Amino acid sequence: MTRTYDVAVIGATGSVGEALVQLLEEREFPVATLYLLGSGESAGESLTFRGKSRRVAALEAFDFSQVRLVFFAAGAVVTRGHIEAARAAGCVVIDLSAALPAQQAPRVVADANPEQLSRLAPPYCVTSPSAQSVAVATVLAALRPHIEVQRAVITACMAVSSHGRQGVSELARQTAELLNARALEPRLFDRQIAFNLLAQVDAPDAGGHGALERRLAAELKEVLGSPQLKVSATCIQVPVFYGDSISLSLQCRDAVEVEQVCAVLRTASTLEYVEAGDYPTVVGDAVGQEVVYVGRVRGGQDDPAELNLWIASDNVRKGAASNAVQLGELLIKHYL
Amino acid sequence: MTRTYDVAVIGATGSVGEALVQLLEEREFPVATLYLLGSGESAGESLTFRGKSRRVAALEAFDFSQVRLVFFAAGAVVTRGHIEAARAAGCVVIDLSAALPAQQAPRVVADANPEQLSRLAPPYCVTSPSAQSVAVATVLAALRPHIEVQRAVITACMAVSSHGRQGVSELARQTAELLNARALEPRLFDRQIAFNLLAQVDAPDAGGHGALERRLAAELKEVLGSPQLKVSATCIQVPVFYGDSISLSLQCRDAVEVEQVCAVLRTASTLEYVEAGDYPTVVGDAVGQEVVYVGRVRGGQDDPAELNLWIASDNVRKGAASNAVQLGELLIKHYL
Repeated sequence: MTRTYDVAVIGATGSVGEALVQLLEEREFPVATLYLLGSGESAGESLTFRGKSRRVAALEAFDFSQVRLVFFAAGAVVTRGHIEAARAAGCVVIDLSAALPAQQAPRVVADANPEQLSRLAPPYCVTSPSAQSVAVATVLAALRPHIEVQRAVITACMAVSSHGRQGVSELARQTAELLNARALEPRLFDRQIAFNLLAQVDAPDAGGHGALERRLAAELKEVLGSPQLKVSATCIQVPVFYGDSISLSLQCRDAVEVEQVCAVLRTASTLEYVEAGDYPTVVGDAVGQEVVYVGRVRGGQDDPAELNLWIASDNVRKGAASNAVQLGELLIKHYL
Repeated sequence: MTRTYDVAVIGATGSVGEALVQLLEEREFPVATLYLLGSGESAGESLTFRGKSRRVAALEAFDFSQVRLVFFAAGAVVTRGHIEAARAAGCVVIDLSAALPAQQAPRVVADANPEQLSRLAPPYCVTSPSAQSVAVATVLAALRPHIEVQRAVITACMAVSSHGRQGVSELARQTAELLNARALEPRLFDRQIAFNLLAQVDAPDAGGHGALERRLAAELKEVLGSPQLKVSATCIQVPVFYGDSISLSLQCRDAVEVEQVCAVLRTASTLEYVEAGDYPTVVGDAVGQEVVYVGRVRGGQDDPAELNLWIASDNVRKGAASNAVQLGELLIKHYL
């Protein structure tokens, strides 16, 4: 008989939390009792797990000593308010909000740097990187044995579901208003997102970089173990409901053999490679999948050491929930 | 009294042709008689110029010796079929389809390399580059006296109006179908464009690059007079009606003084610079304007010689029609 564990999911009613609960069931994660927790208004809602409706309890009143493993799928503020209690109770913690610094909770992409997990000391605490980092790192990790990347220029075109359900309903509402020729009053975003592209997804710092752009650069270096990697990151908001589309241009140390790169990507179990001529998109390909799609693989027009790729990945299911559940599976294997 | 010229617009009923006719009027271009021409079904339609409705005549029957200046705003196939007749008749030709090689019809962006026009020999023939080249070249030309760019990595997010009115109505149709939860049958694009991003805008060649991506790289080098410039170009189709959004990452020879770059962009008459914190978008900013918008100007996170920018530009009005009319004005000044 497989050993089972009591598990808590914080932020269970959010879109990532819900996908997480779904994946715990689908992947037959060894759950004994599942505690669904939310803060504020979300407590009292319910979710289905293994065919039964389960009520979301108030995070504020939760006793972490009841569980062995905790997924923090809430925002960074809520997570910061409760993560120390979980660690103090001896829980294994998987945080999706990057509330703790890398020294306390290393960034791990299951399909890129799983070996990092074997180096943890108790209390076991690990961060699941941003969805965009998961997607890019998965591709770069597959290529790592074959090419040495010196610079990655990333334009990440992010779906509105990066803002959770509110983002999804705001895009739907704005689109319907515009199609019905009604005046538009943007609510969630600072301006019209329907039929428009927004050049930033969060407030830029003094250097002009957004928090997610900083996070993406830092996470890629850490996950790939390449502190010297140069990263240019631009995160934009696009009028797409689900799934991130990423334009990636790499500069490598040596001339790139594009055919070899394609062969590597084609056989990588962590990726779905789409042959030249065709290309992956979020709608119809990546969304709903637990795998990162990659296509439009091509060299440089002017530089033999350049490699260009296009990535499509489900930001909620693959980039967030699936990586977190994979980390949980690996942590169980290593330590429980 | 200003001298005036008989002018023909080929492809007058297309969205670029229509914008061109509008700008000839708005900019008080010295038109004596305006001939509107179209091929196939478009002959017989009508457009308004200087308050009067004008009928579009059949291109096939047109005698080019009647006019002094011709704008080719049709596709490359139609243009190739008639451009030699226009040149043989001694017309000054401005082609927006890049039907002729650069040796016969140099690529000129009025706000980037106007000096090129003084070197023409008769028959005077010039190409207005792609809308994306016009936008990027305008920004790079403003920076040229201050920074030496060695590599430009471009992700051009293109509006459906790059496919003319058909593109616009296809996005509207698909969006309405989806919002009404009806099954979708893509027509113009090879798959769903509503709420989706398509990774390429035309068929890739053996190297994986699309024709527009090749054109963008070649045009930038020619217009900026930098044959050694390395260009990585990715052109994608986004669910936006009008206006291109371009993510641009530059590598320069020397460390970039971001404050100086901002000061240069702020004072450039050819650009609208948007201060940090805010950012330009196509809806609300660039669309309907004859100026290229630039914002999100920031250095590199890891490289002092990196510069990142965001460009928003009206692909039809600014990128195509306005540059062509500006070229016409300059050609008149030089040669007529």
